[in-house]
Amino acid sequence: MTEPSIISPGVPVRAVDVIRKKRDQMELSRDEITSLVQGYTSGEIPDYQAAAWLMAAVIRGLTRAETAALTDAMLRSGEVLDLSDFAASKVDKHSTGGVGDKTSLVLAPVAAAGGLVVPMISGRGLGHTGGTLDKLESIPGFNVNLPVGEFRRVLHACGCCMIGQTAEIAPADRKLYALRDVTGTVESPYLICASIMSKKLAEGIDALVLDVKTGSGAFMKSEEDAVFLAELMVETGQRMGKKMVALITDMDQPLGLYVGNSLEVAEVLEVLRGQGPEELRALCLELAGWMFHLGGIASSVAQGKSTAEQLIKSGKALDKFRQMVELQGGDARVIDDPGRLPRAKHTLDVAAQCSGYVAAIECEAVGTACVVLGGGREKKEDSVDSAVGMILHKKVGDRVTTGEPLCVIHYNSESRAQRAKSLLEKSYRIADAPPEQARPLVHRVIGEEH
Amino acid sequence: MTEPSIISPGVPVRAVDVIRKKRDQMELSRDEITSLVQGYTSGEIPDYQAAAWLMAAVIRGLTRAETAALTDAMLRSGEVLDLSDFAASKVDKHSTGGVGDKTSLVLAPVAAAGGLVVPMISGRGLGHTGGTLDKLESIPGFNVNLPVGEFRRVLHACGCCMIGQTAEIAPADRKLYALRDVTGTVESPYLICASIMSKKLAEGIDALVLDVKTGSGAFMKSEEDAVFLAELMVETGQRMGKKMVALITDMDQPLGLYVGNSLEVAEVLEVLRGQGPEELRALCLELAGWMFHLGGIASSVAQGKSTAEQLIKSGKALDKFRQMVELQGGDARVIDDPGRLPRAKHTLDVAAQCSGYVAAIECEAVGTACVVLGGGREKKEDSVDSAVGMILHKKVGDRVTTGEPLCVIHYNSESRAQRAKSLLEKSYRIADAPPEQARPLVHRVIGEEH
Repeated sequence: MTEPSIISPGVPVRAVDVIRKKRDQMELSRDEITSLVQGYTSGEIPDYQAAAWLMAAVIRGLTRAETAALTDAMLRSGEVLDLSDFAASKVDKHSTGGVGDKTSLVLAPVAAAGGLVVPMISGRGLGHTGGTLDKLESIPGFNVNLPVGEFRRVLHACGCCMIGQTAEIAPADRKLYALRDVTGTVESPYLICASIMSKKLAEGIDALVLDVKTGSGAFMKSEEDAVFLAELMVETGQRMGKKMVALITDMDQPLGLYVGNSLEVAEVLEVLRGQGPEELRALCLELAGWMFHLGGIASSVAQGKSTAEQLIKSGKALDKFRQMVELQGGDARVIDDPGRLPRAKHTLDVAAQCSGYVAAIECEAVGTACVVLGGGREKKEDSVDSAVGMILHKKVGDRVTTGEPLCVIHYNSESRAQRAKSLLEKSYRIADAPPEQARPLVHRVIGEEH
Repeated sequence: MTEPSIISPGVPVRAVDVIRKKRDQMELSRDEITSLVQGYTSGEIPDYQAAAWLMAAVIRGLTRAETAALTDAMLRSGEVLDLSDFAASKVDKHSTGGVGDKTSLVLAPVAAAGGLVVPMISGRGLGHTGGTLDKLESIPGFNVNLPVGEFRRVLHACGCCMIGQTAEIAPADRKLYALRDVTGTVESPYLICASIMSKKLAEGIDALVLDVKTGSGAFMKSEEDAVFLAELMVETGQRMGKKMVALITDMDQPLGLYVGNSLEVAEVLEVLRGQGPEELRALCLELAGWMFHLGGIASSVAQGKSTAEQLIKSGKALDKFRQMVELQGGDARVIDDPGRLPRAKHTLDVAAQCSGYVAAIECEAVGTACVVLGGGREKKEDSVDSAVGMILHKKVGDRVTTGEPLCVIHYNSESRAQRAKSLLEKSYRIADAPPEQARPLVHRVIGEEH
């Protein structure tokens, strides 16, 4: 019922006092946050104290200064890449995750082809969302586990390199994230911001374009939450001297038509060939336009978009992708022959059960269907089947007639296919009339003037 | 940034889901709380999950039903004494702790002398407050570590027995308390209520008189907080079929004149002889009156008080104390010869630095001065010097002249005495005029009609 009340002066910061301070809604100093992060990373502060602090932070929130201090402490827990030997601007893009979101695979080669350096450190899929690393690994031989020296070598050779988090980058984040996952402290914009930004800023970049997803397939279901997180990340990056912009973009239905690892790589190749679905292509150009603008290559976003379009049209972007695949040990023959990508053994149509118009697609359910097929992870330890997924034939606003396929499931296990089918059937909502107006692809832009 | 979203139906309660539910301000079911307490006690649920839940509970609070469920689960984590073989009413008294609060040592023998059974399981001092067990142990030979069988035997023989918590009683509380102590989750009325009530209800009692302290020497500094905790404990006990009352009593200055373990035992003996300071005597009679009333011995509190007065006057209460001391292995000669209690080697006056009236005594500082002397604990592991403490010569309202002793320190270490003196000098506030009106001893009564 009590705690020692006799605190001697001059005693170093005690974890329990920092926890109580946050619990009682007081602002923590930079030193207090740093000692907490350092102490936890080194093992001096045990999991249970970190867990109590995390819960207090989730419920009480953090001020902007606290969020910046936390990000900085996590960033400094590991190696910060020094890319000052690269003359070109170092620019990256990060997405908060969604279903069918394969833009990173388009953007890295486009930006590098245009003269930027893109040191992209990405994550794996978890829950209903896919992950960039899983998609890349569907290319036979592609190695995402490069040590830092090799990462630099590829960057020097082709301007872009896409790898997974190394042990050296922000170890505090890895340790804290694992704890958050099992203590109900994941869902906090402040902690999400610090987690993302500490890793991205460790890349040694000059500028960062954020794609913050909102809608039924995003982590931030409401636009309000997405905007809040976006503003937090933009301000945190700006406080650290980075050029920042965040686009709030639509994730109320899957992005593009292909969902699943190797299927998405195939769609990426289409976009890099100047084809692919218009909406996916438009988002890639928009994000690339911002990368060129922030990186100083283009004087406006519009000019940056046009640069990106030309790089795709000329085939330079596709060549850059080919070069990166080769440098990272992948089988570059998939680029001209996507049939070499892993393919599922069977397909199964999901047919419309009535006629009308697609009014909505419950996007998280589509992502979950992909996990059910084996194409994603329920737990971090799960392995992923690169080949499975689905190709959507109908998206929001499309007219359908009874029996027509809404989408086609690519599968390797009959029982999993049936569970996925049931989820997909339920995820489509068919109405008599088309939806009144389509949601715009980019809802808002936060940060830099455009 | 994510968590598995695919929860299979029929899967048992996951700790992380219970944590998130509390975090999101939803009410937990009895089953959810029970599985959490059982899982934590058995070791299936790790410290870090319990810590996150505790912090969510501290900040979000618990409903009355949740508080009762938590108390019940903690109570059932261990042995619940069955005292149904005792014909008499089993009644206990619990204080939330203060400075100079020695009423338990008076009440147990008074109540037992009047025909009640008092199965009192008490705690040790921590921080600025003293503990009943430490006071008892200043009696040479007194054994507070009796196994349950021996506890019953003493109860049968003399009607009262005072021991420390055994390993069998509410193990969940012991484990949770240790975790709360290091995770900043001590200060919550809900968790304090569950901790106190789970242990008290494990005693197999019919009725409980609570003495909830308020003021500068109490844990609940504000009367509002004290009332809130009192109502919570009364309702929790009533839900479990116990007769309950809570007295909100003053702890804005030390209770009585003696502070320190053996010094307090000496003052207890004075009260049991019908002497001692009026205020201490009055509180003991008030609490005893309630014990007799709730236990069915007296038809009113007033009648109960008069019974207690007679038991003291007749010497029966002192005899009962003597009997208990003997049965628990203590040297009963101290009762007639308090000089046999441990005595400090030296004394030191704390003199008034100006003339006037004592306007206030910062009561927590007096308790802290006793800890500094070695008479209390900063950490659970600390050992206690029974002999040290202080005797107050002046209390609130008393007139003082410059140089007159405010109190006398009993000490064994010169350097500790100087630190204590400095604390005590600062704890007295002297004003030109006496304080306008004295705080009543009993501020409010909560629970049973009186």
